Amino acid sequence: MKNENISIKEIARLAGTSVATVSRVINQNGRFSKETEKRVREVIEKYNYRPNELARSLRVDKAQVVGVIVPDITNEFFSYIARKIEVDLLKQGYMAVICDTNESLEMEKQYIETLKAMRIGGIIYVSGDQKIEPIKDIPAVYVDRKPEFVEEGQGSCFIGCDNYQGGYLAAERLIKAGRKCIAVVLHAKTIATQDKRLNGYRQALHDYGIPYAEELVYKVEHVGMEQGYQITKRMLESANQTDGIFYSSDILAIGALQYFHEENIKIPEEISIIGIDDIPLSARVVPALTTVKQDYLKFGSLAANAIIKMMKGDQEKRTYILSMELIERETV
Amino acid sequence: MKNENISIKEIARLAGTSVATVSRVINQNGRFSKETEKRVREVIEKYNYRPNELARSLRVDKAQVVGVIVPDITNEFFSYIARKIEVDLLKQGYMAVICDTNESLEMEKQYIETLKAMRIGGIIYVSGDQKIEPIKDIPAVYVDRKPEFVEEGQGSCFIGCDNYQGGYLAAERLIKAGRKCIAVVLHAKTIATQDKRLNGYRQALHDYGIPYAEELVYKVEHVGMEQGYQITKRMLESANQTDGIFYSSDILAIGALQYFHEENIKIPEEISIIGIDDIPLSARVVPALTTVKQDYLKFGSLAANAIIKMMKGDQEKRTYILSMELIERETV
Repeated sequence: MKNENISIKEIARLAGTSVATVSRVINQNGRFSKETEKRVREVIEKYNYRPNELARSLRVDKAQVVGVIVPDITNEFFSYIARKIEVDLLKQGYMAVICDTNESLEMEKQYIETLKAMRIGGIIYVSGDQKIEPIKDIPAVYVDRKPEFVEEGQGSCFIGCDNYQGGYLAAERLIKAGRKCIAVVLHAKTIATQDKRLNGYRQALHDYGIPYAEELVYKVEHVGMEQGYQITKRMLESANQTDGIFYSSDILAIGALQYFHEENIKIPEEISIIGIDDIPLSARVVPALTTVKQDYLKFGSLAANAIIKMMKGDQEKRTYILSMELIERETV
Repeated sequence: MKNENISIKEIARLAGTSVATVSRVINQNGRFSKETEKRVREVIEKYNYRPNELARSLRVDKAQVVGVIVPDITNEFFSYIARKIEVDLLKQGYMAVICDTNESLEMEKQYIETLKAMRIGGIIYVSGDQKIEPIKDIPAVYVDRKPEFVEEGQGSCFIGCDNYQGGYLAAERLIKAGRKCIAVVLHAKTIATQDKRLNGYRQALHDYGIPYAEELVYKVEHVGMEQGYQITKRMLESANQTDGIFYSSDILAIGALQYFHEENIKIPEEISIIGIDDIPLSARVVPALTTVKQDYLKFGSLAANAIIKMMKGDQEKRTYILSMELIERETV
């Protein structure tokens, strides 16, 4: 489907127009009719032409810029991924601009169009949702939450973690601490990721002979400290035997720590808790959070390398699934 | 100095070239000689011409995008400023792209050039340093750390806090808690801001009859949790009567909490500590951090409004200095 070799001349021929007009359409500069633009775009899309090489010839090189779309820049998990991408891009002479979508799928689409209009070289897409469309006309790498279309073998580059394993490790750790009534707090939005973690959790319960109870599965609409605090309060204020909680994000567990402190609930003596991510803050809070590490720095460096390869015109149709790792601290 | 009325025609006349060539230079698109470019740029600079209106005529509106430069996106203080800017820009139909410079002045310069090359509409510049140059050829608003040139009355728009007051409030609060030996931890880089905070601290000591001791002034090269941890360890491992510490950033104080926890030093019974910023995390840590609030959300909304005004061609040569406010929690 991808044809690296189609030239701007051929695009002009196929669209029935001049090279100069194709250039104007690509650069969105100067005059051309809507109809001409439509024909040019159709050819570009059909042959998957990437206008990088043109942009590269500009004197200040926008094509060396990568757009990094993240759902929540106020969450360390994403700000550290973005930082790592920046640092690794810079080593090879590329720069990053970050687009924070505040968990809005609509904003993600807007940013993709805007980044394309700015004629940058590529996009690293850390979506807040798995129901996204593949990005066209520009190299793109998908990170963290696996888009649905990736499963269909469309030859995209995706970098993520083994979320089933993450759920299993977390639940198993709580079980081994003698916990019997283990709640799980999931994010309502990122269903594919969350389903895998839930399946891992269920499998661990099953393997250790603990019955699964649907009423122990909680969901939050947004992942933040406040949501972690509130869901924990709601959970424990109802008559409840919960003695272990698996939070599907460190930031939720860290928010919960404040509730336990206020209510004088001793962690881990009365309740054991575990997170996922291993953001830097997890090691800093009191008590330090036991968690399952996603190697988000590796997300960043793999993504930076992959997008540079693609921007240079190489194929990089790989799916990287990283292992997760239990990090022992003080809350289990 | 600024002439809002110069037209692209006049620029062409003054540079001795055609309107089409001026347009090509501005858009960095198509052919022109280095010499022509130099002449055009000189005229543009001399008359402070802003090519926005041209960019606005493009079909996808890069001119509606604002570049937000921040020194450390992993610090909540900056990520929440960026988020607030985004949200407020969006209300009026503008978008933000974030450039994280990782505290590098060199990167700040690079990003400014790159953002200009992308022909975005304006820049909100939260610098990690006060030794910066004014941004030319494009509307710019300066936030948080006051650039040196702002003092020279060049008519820029700056938004910051009363740092002298912040230092005073912090030291006074520790003094009122009965503390006599009050250390202060400053950032070595942002000298103007830090000097003002130090002066406020000194004035408070003076007003309450406590002698100032230079050996109680500590500096960190970088503002992060690890640095807060390390400087506190170094401070308290030497024989030391310190009974109060004023950290010039919440994130330093939050890092220190871990040290106190490990060493079983009771806060505030043995040592009182206070931060500056009031980032969301301050209210979440255990014990919750007493701090002096910088209204960083107001930074964000003022900056968004100012840059939009400027992008519309209005003057906005104001300096906003916001008051700081003591936030009582559990560490004093």
